[in-house]
Amino acid sequence: MTLTIPETTRAVTIGALRLLDQMAMACVTEMRLANGRRSDIMAISDKGEIWIVEVKSCRADYESDGKWHEYRPFCDRLFFAVSEEFPKELIPKDTGLIIADQFGGALTRPAPEHKIAGARRKSLTLKIARQAARRTMALQFGDILAIDV
Amino acid sequence: MTLTIPETTRAVTIGALRLLDQMAMACVTEMRLANGRRSDIMAISDKGEIWIVEVKSCRADYESDGKWHEYRPFCDRLFFAVSEEFPKELIPKDTGLIIADQFGGALTRPAPEHKIAGARRKSLTLKIARQAARRTMALQFGDILAIDV
Repeated sequence: MTLTIPETTRAVTIGALRLLDQMAMACVTEMRLANGRRSDIMAISDKGEIWIVEVKSCRADYESDGKWHEYRPFCDRLFFAVSEEFPKELIPKDTGLIIADQFGGALTRPAPEHKIAGARRKSLTLKIARQAARRTMALQFGDILAIDV
Repeated sequence: MTLTIPETTRAVTIGALRLLDQMAMACVTEMRLANGRRSDIMAISDKGEIWIVEVKSCRADYESDGKWHEYRPFCDRLFFAVSEEFPKELIPKDTGLIIADQFGGALTRPAPEHKIAGARRKSLTLKIARQAARRTMALQFGDILAIDV
């Protein structure tokens, strides 16, 4: 079965979220960073370690994003998540690799660690807390509270 | 119109959440604390200040909770939120007071500040981030991800 590009993005995202949940990472999607970029998935461990996972659906999707390295300062580890069909040789060797479909994912290459500076970790953790809290409220009480997220 | 006790709890909760959102506080409900207590509303500001708001529907609800002071070490400010009909003289003077109904709330008495120790603030912020993130995922992808929150 061939998926469209949006279907692939959704399937890989779901599979990566499943994998991260199994790894006890708590995730937020579509998080805006201080540099204006929007990360596909940010995940935070119970020790406060922060990962960014960028989802790429196809070669063109990857090649059109020349600025992926701008995510690195905002995480302790940086991953790409792609489908089994994706040309994996494109993915830089100094990032982690997750292969996923809608049923789950596998971490096929660990990501090197580059620890976030303390002050930025603090502000990122706070930002994740506030954004996730506001989204939860919008989803729980959206019609009543009209919180804009 | 007389509300039942659960209806009052919900109305006061909604009104307090509206007020807190207007005050740019990001909220999570029903958060389990390290001492086993469950706070009704935790709210976190963009500076990382943490408030706890306990919702009380009626005199009996308030009087049955002899341990509300156990929330204080987990927040910078502690509030009670009650309806207009609630016997407000019951509420301790060294806590803040919010009067609310389903349409909104008013902060009628500010709460004294008692700053959380640095290490606990860090762990609480991380806990809010993870709990809110997991709840958002459960609400967004609940049927798919089956995240238990």
